[in-house]
Amino acid sequence: MRVAVIGTGLVGGSLAAALRGLDAVDEVVGADADPRELTLAESRGLIDRGAPTPAAAVQGADLVVLAVPVSVVGEVAKEVGTVMAPGSLLTDVASVKARLVPLMESAVGPGVTVIGGHPMAGSHEAGAIHATAELFVGATYLLTPTARTDPEAYRRLHGLLTAIGARVLAVDVARHDLLVAVVSHLPQLAATTLMNLAAGRASREHAELLMLAAGGFRDTTRVAASNPDLWLDICAQNRDAIVEVLDDYGDRLGALRSLVAEGDEDGLRAELAAARAARRSLPGKESVTGALVELHLAIPDRPGVIAEVATSIGSVGVNIEDIAIEHAPSGGRGTIRLAIIGFAQAGRARGALESRGYDVIEQAP
Amino acid sequence: MRVAVIGTGLVGGSLAAALRGLDAVDEVVGADADPRELTLAESRGLIDRGAPTPAAAVQGADLVVLAVPVSVVGEVAKEVGTVMAPGSLLTDVASVKARLVPLMESAVGPGVTVIGGHPMAGSHEAGAIHATAELFVGATYLLTPTARTDPEAYRRLHGLLTAIGARVLAVDVARHDLLVAVVSHLPQLAATTLMNLAAGRASREHAELLMLAAGGFRDTTRVAASNPDLWLDICAQNRDAIVEVLDDYGDRLGALRSLVAEGDEDGLRAELAAARAARRSLPGKESVTGALVELHLAIPDRPGVIAEVATSIGSVGVNIEDIAIEHAPSGGRGTIRLAIIGFAQAGRARGALESRGYDVIEQAP
Repeated sequence: MRVAVIGTGLVGGSLAAALRGLDAVDEVVGADADPRELTLAESRGLIDRGAPTPAAAVQGADLVVLAVPVSVVGEVAKEVGTVMAPGSLLTDVASVKARLVPLMESAVGPGVTVIGGHPMAGSHEAGAIHATAELFVGATYLLTPTARTDPEAYRRLHGLLTAIGARVLAVDVARHDLLVAVVSHLPQLAATTLMNLAAGRASREHAELLMLAAGGFRDTTRVAASNPDLWLDICAQNRDAIVEVLDDYGDRLGALRSLVAEGDEDGLRAELAAARAARRSLPGKESVTGALVELHLAIPDRPGVIAEVATSIGSVGVNIEDIAIEHAPSGGRGTIRLAIIGFAQAGRARGALESRGYDVIEQAP
Repeated sequence: MRVAVIGTGLVGGSLAAALRGLDAVDEVVGADADPRELTLAESRGLIDRGAPTPAAAVQGADLVVLAVPVSVVGEVAKEVGTVMAPGSLLTDVASVKARLVPLMESAVGPGVTVIGGHPMAGSHEAGAIHATAELFVGATYLLTPTARTDPEAYRRLHGLLTAIGARVLAVDVARHDLLVAVVSHLPQLAATTLMNLAAGRASREHAELLMLAAGGFRDTTRVAASNPDLWLDICAQNRDAIVEVLDDYGDRLGALRSLVAEGDEDGLRAELAAARAARRSLPGKESVTGALVELHLAIPDRPGVIAEVATSIGSVGVNIEDIAIEHAPSGGRGTIRLAIIGFAQAGRARGALESRGYDVIEQAP
């Protein structure tokens, strides 16, 4: 398998290095708009070789990864889409999906599959200098298969990402953008607002204010130091979901303000206690342990089945360890075998599939 | 000097232990509503001895520290106020001041001075078991002198707190409550709201949502795990300032929402860039270094002078290392000598004092 990575910075360079370490990968070719980044990626051994342009890098590639800024994904997809061979696979690493995936799908020719990707891994650092093959170990890696996603291509990409240590979770593109609006974009904008409020008051009349900023304030505003350009792109690409979630947040803040203003102790206690319980029960980073359980399900041979199966399981937060797809010799039907760690996770996955009408057979280890 | 500490938990126990380590302090007596806490404070050597009641602990004390929950400060002040001898000093450690300081002032007899205190130090832990004399080293310790504050009493308390390693900053009581509403209470309520929003969506329809919660979300919601009872007290005691700051936050969020909804890239970049710059320039924990500079100023001998001088300097974020007060033999006038580290800080303090009409003489080291 040949891989092309366009954009060899922190995420692209790390992905290149991780994939390069797999037996299944024969060569990783890189391209980058910044020749120094590309040279660095090559000298650090993140890639086998650099190519002068994205189109040149993509020649003969089975897998193409776009690891470029959100604002240029569509443009670069057009540049490489026509060069990609039938049977090859295009993915990206952008943190928004609903607008980008259709752009990528329309940029490629027939027989090329697009699967949006979003590794929930990163660093405050940037650039090839900080890239590492270990970046994805234990990290959640979101994939957004659509009705047009070829099942075999999905299985291949899922297998590669699992092999580099990621926990792959499939979500629908629109749902993806709403989820990240809640867990990532809203926290960013809330922190930005809080920081500007405090700084505004500090400069106007309360010079001592920022000297009082203790741990709680520092934690709550940490992400306000993020790169503005990155967030401008995200706000533009995920406008609708962000506005929806900001409105929800504003409504909830207004309700809390009323509880404080009215001295409603019971109502306020309920809010504080609910938040405490939820914060304490946030899942930790440790992976689920247990025996590997196999789920077998018969599938009709129609477009969109793999997206439906994968996102159904993703929607209950269950990570698939392995996927195998078997087509019936007669065609028209097939079987998916899924490997999932632990009976609890397998049970949830089964419930989600059965609620959509699939017959599932569970096979204990 | 004899010290009584009422409430020997984390903050009270730590303050007792720190004061007990000073040469100027002969004995530290403790009292606590929970006899096990008091026994533990005694066996850990945080106090010299425990007393059965607050009133008993306060007998003969020169300094009384109330380190009890916000909701009972007024009640305990009444209990000890009538027992305190003229010339003694009452302080507390509550995180709200505007309602509590007048309560304490009305609870004490003539000749007893009240100075509100708020150490910006704590821990996620609670109880005497976690108390340590080191808790205040390098921590900002707010004092709220009022027009009724006796200058000598202020100088004594300032000296003790500086001796245990705290950086003392004087602020007006009302201003104190607005400042902590911004740097502490708003971050708490913003985090509570964000956590409940995410948890609500996760339980309704997006089971996978909390699995995606990465570093940014975790940082931004960390304080949502705080003790609800503590925050109910704070919300009740600091209602007006909290509502004012929540309204400001809501207005700013609404403005940011408009920028996102309208795709106003310039406006959004300005907000993101301002927050980034402010977050990056938050003062670190390292103390100001430089030579000790002395400021001398003549003061009229009238009530409220020490509060005005101390809070003027506090308002520009400058820490006073040492204070000396000299009364003229003829009475009616006096001199304050202030020691401040570094020419830059001394210059700011001088500017603040001169803007209020004081004549200041700077004496280089």
